[in-house]
Amino acid sequence: MAAAYFDSGRTDSASFELFVRALPEERNFLVAAGLEPLLDAVEQWRFDEEDIAFLRSLGQFSDGFLGHLATLRFSGEMRAVPEGEIVFAGEPIVEITGPRIEAQLLETLALNVIGTHTTQASKAARVGIAAQGRAFVDFSARRDHGRDAAMSAARAAMIAGASATSLVAAGRALDVALSGTMAHAFVMSFDDERDAFRTFARAFPGDAVLLIDTWDTIEGAHHAVAVANELRSDGVSIDGVRLDSGDLAVLSRKVRAILDGGGLRDVRIFVSGDLDERAVAALIGEGAPIDGFGVGTRMGTSEDAPSLGVVYKLVADARGPKLKLSEGKATLPGRKQIWRNEDYDVLGLDAEHSEGRPLIEPVLASGRRLAAPVPITRLRDRCSDAIAALPSRLRSLDPADPSYDVRVSGELSALVDDLLAVHKVG
Amino acid sequence: MAAAYFDSGRTDSASFELFVRALPEERNFLVAAGLEPLLDAVEQWRFDEEDIAFLRSLGQFSDGFLGHLATLRFSGEMRAVPEGEIVFAGEPIVEITGPRIEAQLLETLALNVIGTHTTQASKAARVGIAAQGRAFVDFSARRDHGRDAAMSAARAAMIAGASATSLVAAGRALDVALSGTMAHAFVMSFDDERDAFRTFARAFPGDAVLLIDTWDTIEGAHHAVAVANELRSDGVSIDGVRLDSGDLAVLSRKVRAILDGGGLRDVRIFVSGDLDERAVAALIGEGAPIDGFGVGTRMGTSEDAPSLGVVYKLVADARGPKLKLSEGKATLPGRKQIWRNEDYDVLGLDAEHSEGRPLIEPVLASGRRLAAPVPITRLRDRCSDAIAALPSRLRSLDPADPSYDVRVSGELSALVDDLLAVHKVG
Repeated sequence: MAAAYFDSGRTDSASFELFVRALPEERNFLVAAGLEPLLDAVEQWRFDEEDIAFLRSLGQFSDGFLGHLATLRFSGEMRAVPEGEIVFAGEPIVEITGPRIEAQLLETLALNVIGTHTTQASKAARVGIAAQGRAFVDFSARRDHGRDAAMSAARAAMIAGASATSLVAAGRALDVALSGTMAHAFVMSFDDERDAFRTFARAFPGDAVLLIDTWDTIEGAHHAVAVANELRSDGVSIDGVRLDSGDLAVLSRKVRAILDGGGLRDVRIFVSGDLDERAVAALIGEGAPIDGFGVGTRMGTSEDAPSLGVVYKLVADARGPKLKLSEGKATLPGRKQIWRNEDYDVLGLDAEHSEGRPLIEPVLASGRRLAAPVPITRLRDRCSDAIAALPSRLRSLDPADPSYDVRVSGELSALVDDLLAVHKVG
Repeated sequence: MAAAYFDSGRTDSASFELFVRALPEERNFLVAAGLEPLLDAVEQWRFDEEDIAFLRSLGQFSDGFLGHLATLRFSGEMRAVPEGEIVFAGEPIVEITGPRIEAQLLETLALNVIGTHTTQASKAARVGIAAQGRAFVDFSARRDHGRDAAMSAARAAMIAGASATSLVAAGRALDVALSGTMAHAFVMSFDDERDAFRTFARAFPGDAVLLIDTWDTIEGAHHAVAVANELRSDGVSIDGVRLDSGDLAVLSRKVRAILDGGGLRDVRIFVSGDLDERAVAALIGEGAPIDGFGVGTRMGTSEDAPSLGVVYKLVADARGPKLKLSEGKATLPGRKQIWRNEDYDVLGLDAEHSEGRPLIEPVLASGRRLAAPVPITRLRDRCSDAIAALPSRLRSLDPADPSYDVRVSGELSALVDDLLAVHKVG
């Protein structure tokens, strides 16, 4: 497509908008995420010699086009909703404006990065809502869709309020807290579970979380008590125990009683194992004495909605705002702004003025980012504030009724009517 | 955990097995995939200076352990089911044997790579079954979970029978066929749809697939006919038209009639838009005159089952076979083999002999792969043969009843009983 633009001389400027047409059933809002990684990728975006050689080998592209690709960098601008803010269906998350070929070639990259991070952050925010202030940790790396997805899942979870991730590479790359884990295989490498616990507790004095369900959870809890009391004279304490199987509500109560009875009132109980926001909410609802949740696969893959219908649509070019009419897939024309008010948003044209806080801001110009990357801790605070500011019905795991109110401005509505009239006449 | 192994001197050899506990509801079988990428990653696996510096900065690890990590390479062996073969719940897909620390540290990598590729290939195989020999193309890159996931989705789809991918990077890296696409934005960059079609058809003479639903599909079909007939005198033909919205069964029939009426009987009809195996099967069931399907998000993210419950479990160490008893999560002990017979598999100990074709073979020794990578075309043939050899009830989109028969060998059952008895006594 880019080749056809080039060969037909269509190198004028165009604006594309990235948004989600409709929210998945169990999403009352989305957490915008992935902007910093996208800005990195856009700044670094280029076709190297091997790319060009490969494209040439296909025999489909002109030398002129391939020569153009070889020197191509993104020279345009981007506007976006800051990471950690809340967005709704139909609201632009990112807008990319630049020479048509460049902006078009960024489509797959932009959709992939923003879509993945936003999918993962929006799911993690639900886990955070369910956890009601208790800790939850990202355990998803092993089952996320590739290394990138594991990194983005860790980052998205941290933005959405997770207290740590188990992915060491994410800890290093993102400067976020790590949570070490102990696997059943570790316990199984010892003949006596107590030897496994002793070894682990001594390796990480004060920090160890002992996995107690390898053979029998109740026996494991007694072993943890025995080992903790035995090591106390050496000045070694344990932080907690973890349950990874069985009826976690029932077992956590029994384990709490065993720990308390053994003088380990400060030792925390962590649970894991196929958890998601519904499971976390159910455990808390049952009054289970659980201090923290390891949440993995279902959060990182956003199991109930593993993709958002992110789309990337032409909204304006040098000749003005553009409209698409495909059945069930129409798009609103023009470069836009979102104005947030206490319980509704206004979606209008950027050139308009409206009540409320404007969400979309310039983030890149002439191909360079306008500000340094924002630390995860700040994104996390922003996300927490944004969720807290939502009408309370949206902070439910069930579909909010009514859903959030996004109003199309009068000027934007009028523009749609004008363009429809032109198309019908044409 | 690795640090605790090291500091306690537990550097003996151990065997871990990667398998899926239970198939998702809508999977009658899995397509084993991801082995070649895993072998690449295992051969290249190491901790670089920055990794070590980061781990040192955490203040949790001994100098001895960090020094060990700095020189660590995988020195062990791997056995695996070849890519493209079919596997079932409980059957080892990969077995990793080596010094305990090394084999343990590979857990997340192995689960992530094999889990992702196998998830994607198993979903794509269902699309292939639904397509009944018609072409399907991987369109998923824009919504897969990151760049790795887009690459693995393309590769997995090709193994499972897709005819091409739209991801240019995958075409280059994997030497697989590419399918160019035209977006609505391209059409919208022209005032007259016919100009868009002319430009695209001339840019890719003979290969162009025109997207005809930007404004009105029926009008678009007439425009395609007009442009094709106009360009014929210049020796330029078009390959097909694509519909991406609306009722595809109804519209494809109308479009076929328009194309045929315009003398374009050879022009093919492609469809896309939120397709999965169910949608493909329904369109074919309705007799829709569709020649090929662009299948994207729902295939690449394996929407109905975005992860498999892949696990990585210790099955043996220097002291013999190992058993885990966690409630609902027990594991079968010992290093194994799968023997495939016409309509059942035998899962037994590697040292046994059984009827049938053994599926697990050595793939890596002393940390080096034993054979060169297998070209995708061969994996694709293997997968096609393996699916064709299944009992026919498994080649249904609905749950097979009964499910495939995987029999635990007498020797393996006896070993479980022996270990249970030991544990109960202990």
